Order: sequence, then C-alpha cells, then structure tokens
Amino acid sequence: MPIRRTACCAPVLTGRLEPAQADELASVFRALGDPGRLRLLSFLAAQPGGEACVCHLTEPLGLSQPTVSHHLKVLTEANLLERERRGTWMYYRLRPARLEELCAALAPPRKLTTSMQRRAAQ
Amino acid sequence: MPIRRTACCAPVLTGRLEPAQADELASVFRALGDPGRLRLLSFLAAQPGGEACVCHLTEPLGLSQPTVSHHLKVLTEANLLERERRGTWMYYRLRPARLEELCAALAPPRKLTTSMQRRAAQ
Repeated sequence: MPIRRTACCAPVLTGRLEPAQADELASVFRALGDPGRLRLLSFLAAQPGGEACVCHLTEPLGLSQPTVSHHLKVLTEANLLERERRGTWMYYRLRPARLEELCAALAPPRKLTTSMQRRAAQ
Repeated sequence: MPIRRTACCAPVLTGRLEPAQADELASVFRALGDPGRLRLLSFLAAQPGGEACVCHLTEPLGLSQPTVSHHLKVLTEANLLERERRGTWMYYRLRPARLEELCAALAPPRKLTTSMQRRAAQ
C-alpha cells in the first residue's frame, strides 16, 4: 500500500517526531537504502522528463529483470516514483516533489545550525 | 568504520551515480531507515545545542539501553552524530551539516522540476 503523502512531511528535526510518523518516514528511507534503487533513481533523473520504460532499465543498471521489478515496486510504494501504462509497456517517472518533501523533513532547525556555528567558531 | 564524508556528497539525481557512491549513500539512508533512530535524532534536535548525554536518552524514547546504544553506534558510523566524552559520560550531538549534505544529494535537477511542472499544467 502506498505510504500516505501527508505523513511523510513530518519534520524529523524541527518537532518531536511521533512513533507513527517515524514508522512511515523510516520506511521511505529504507526504500532509499539500497544502492541499486539509488542508481535506478539516478538513471531515471538523467532521462528526458525523468522517466523511462521498464524495458530500458535492466541493461544500463546491470541488474536482472526481477531485481529491477522489485526495486520499482518498492520505490513506487514509497511514492518516489509514479507509473503509467502506455500500450503494452509500463513507464516509470520520478516524483521530484516527494524528494523535496524528504529534504524538508531532514532540514535542521535554524537555531541548531546557528548554535553549532557559534560552537565551531569558539 | 565511519563513512567518508566526501563520498556522501555524491548527488543522486544530478549526475550518474557510480556503484561505489551508491553503496555509501545507501548505507546512510539505511541508518535513517529505522523509526527508533529517527526519533532519537528528533529528540536530540530538540535539546539545547542538539546534544544529550547517553544517560538521558533511554527514558524519553522508551527504548532499552542496549537498543539506544546500538542506534547511537549506527548513527555515529554514518556521521549523522558525533560524540564527546565528558568525565564518565558520553555526549552525542547532531551534525546538521551532514543532514544538509544528504538533502543536497536528493535535490532534483532544476530542468526536471521545470519539465514536471510543464507536464502538470497541460
């Protein structure tokens, strides 16, 4: 089941993270915690429109078709990719907004960054 | 062994990610892929100076001492925390710069975001 988009916006560092929010956010980081999936995202980002047909993904990544299919499933369930059927082929496309949400969730609070800079300058 | 800081700066989405870079970056996301570790980071971020003594971490998180110790080890090895001994106690502190690096690694290329916005407007 896809992870709810709203839950992923919970900031890690600017509020107290509730257990349920932590569960959902951790599952997205686990989806990113595989080198094959990161390379797949990187490959898609380099394609026109950030998308590719599933049939074009196995060779450049040097992964088997079942492995690529598994990675695509995990990334789609984490809302990092969306897919679209065109005729007999399935196309997968990056969701940049989702990656921006993750970025925002990791952003350190400004007061913390300032306090660290002050400490480093001492 | 701590992950090399330079390797973690490899951008996922603005260049072709090499296998070795993907391995190192994936290991950092795996460190974040646990709800207990995310709550630990969140708790530290809420403390003055983004730090706390290890003895103050178990109760608010509702985790056992060995579990907290394991999470601290994983986060420190991923360079997400740094530690400092003060007398008999060990203090753990967030490394906001590391989180900013991760954010930058996930940033989608501008041309991709623009192309997605154009598509959505059609």
